[in-house]
Amino acid sequence: MITVLAGGVGAARFLSGLVRVSPPAGVTAVVNTADDVTLHGLRICPDLDTVTYTLAGAVDPGTGWGLAGETWQVMEALERFAPVAPSGSAAGLTWFRLGDRDLATHLYRSARLGEGAGLVAVTAEVATAWGVEATLLPMTEDPVQTRVTVAGEGEIGFQEYFVERRHDVAAFAVRFAGIDQARPAPGVLAALDGADGVVIAPSNPIVSIAPVLAVAGVRDRLRARRRQVVAVSPIVAGAALKGPAARLMAELGHEASVVGVARLWTDVAGTLVVDEADAALAPEVEAAGMACVVAPSVMHGPDEAAALARTTLAALA
Amino acid sequence: MITVLAGGVGAARFLSGLVRVSPPAGVTAVVNTADDVTLHGLRICPDLDTVTYTLAGAVDPGTGWGLAGETWQVMEALERFAPVAPSGSAAGLTWFRLGDRDLATHLYRSARLGEGAGLVAVTAEVATAWGVEATLLPMTEDPVQTRVTVAGEGEIGFQEYFVERRHDVAAFAVRFAGIDQARPAPGVLAALDGADGVVIAPSNPIVSIAPVLAVAGVRDRLRARRRQVVAVSPIVAGAALKGPAARLMAELGHEASVVGVARLWTDVAGTLVVDEADAALAPEVEAAGMACVVAPSVMHGPDEAAALARTTLAALA
Repeated sequence: MITVLAGGVGAARFLSGLVRVSPPAGVTAVVNTADDVTLHGLRICPDLDTVTYTLAGAVDPGTGWGLAGETWQVMEALERFAPVAPSGSAAGLTWFRLGDRDLATHLYRSARLGEGAGLVAVTAEVATAWGVEATLLPMTEDPVQTRVTVAGEGEIGFQEYFVERRHDVAAFAVRFAGIDQARPAPGVLAALDGADGVVIAPSNPIVSIAPVLAVAGVRDRLRARRRQVVAVSPIVAGAALKGPAARLMAELGHEASVVGVARLWTDVAGTLVVDEADAALAPEVEAAGMACVVAPSVMHGPDEAAALARTTLAALA
Repeated sequence: MITVLAGGVGAARFLSGLVRVSPPAGVTAVVNTADDVTLHGLRICPDLDTVTYTLAGAVDPGTGWGLAGETWQVMEALERFAPVAPSGSAAGLTWFRLGDRDLATHLYRSARLGEGAGLVAVTAEVATAWGVEATLLPMTEDPVQTRVTVAGEGEIGFQEYFVERRHDVAAFAVRFAGIDQARPAPGVLAALDGADGVVIAPSNPIVSIAPVLAVAGVRDRLRARRRQVVAVSPIVAGAALKGPAARLMAELGHEASVVGVARLWTDVAGTLVVDEADAALAPEVEAAGMACVVAPSVMHGPDEAAALARTTLAALA
């Protein structure tokens, strides 16, 4: 039984490798929901969807998110309404592109939530519909929203930062609105308690893993068993393979390196897996308090993802 | 200034003719909303959309509703979820087919309503986005739901009757839940008071026109000036050109003919336009209390719709 703390693309790729080397029914992902956004009245869960589509083998291989072979009829039609929406309205916004087939997921989820179903149940239904055997859990069913303070604008929502501004603006602060009231989703603490080992997936430490760790009870449970917790660095050679992890770490005062990652996670994880490109930094990782495993960590395809998962599991033993 | 009480397809075709023979800016349609339904968390307004798309020249000419050249990616993708939806859930239902481009309208409308906008304002925005010059008003901004009591099932929603069962089941009763509390939408009574004449479009008397007439103040205003109200019969030679109007009239105890239509509307309209096929019934229409104009009323295309509108306007003079 392996439980994985997960964000989006990097975690999804890692999980796709993990379910090739470990029985999928024994894999549970606790997935960040602080990136979630409500658009057009629909609840969008980008990280849950990326993990679902990736494990279903349906993800767009080019982007790492969204569906392969997607069409965009609805978004194109929605552009008609942007000119008539009153100033300040979020209706008719199309910078967050929702593909047609992806929209079906949001329609289903939103309808079920509107009927009073919990996000855990709905996430399981969506995963089942996509043939995913691993258990996917939202970190919480309570509302949490990542807010980013950026240059010249003040605080904006995460998707405004990440998608609308393409994370191409300086960030001064990140906070998770609602996190203090957020209870772990049903099953989350049990998945941590019952796991033979816990993996922190190679996801953005600042905006993907931090909110999961901040849910009540999660950090404490990892601390209590940090020797059975292995983290995979999302930073390779001082850069993120995808997204703003390195930039955000630097802007928020962390070293944008595997050493900076180790300092962020040393209290919750005993071991850090770093890429061979960072082999020279292993002593500094260990000085930060984490055992360091050096192995190829860039997942170009399923074989490399499976190899990285195997290395990670070996470090748990 | 002409104000038209309108349902869906028949009214939309009539209106498309009217705006060719009368300045569109002087045409106001007061449209039935009792058919509206919330699906997948989205507010669907079938009659408003049919009128909008028809006046925009974008309607599917084959069906009379929906958009020409529509695609169905979202609905096809939604079918994946039907097997995982719990029994009793309305999520994942696909019997009400929403086209991809049509969905954009529902997303925009639902987002705006969610922001607190009224249906009048949102309807105007949607019409503007589609280049519609006539004024489209929902009959009310309050919730009204047509409910149909059908054989073997009891009471069901209108769209369950109309779309899911293809109106192919006996109906024993129709009611408009919420109608007693429904206030006329802003602008509706003024559009009736300020019009040079009022037209009751060739729409289903039982489920399209009756709810509009039942909104507080509408029937009284028409009664007070019934000589300036002209109705166009939706029944031709004892049958409806589209939909269950004739069947519903018969099942609910009305004569399924222009005479039956005249008896339903004689208190609110001074004149009934009937098709040449019903010329022999003109004396009975007049015996029911309405002046009768006989003219071609089947709208195969825009020229016939314009001619019917011209005949109708002439009857107002």
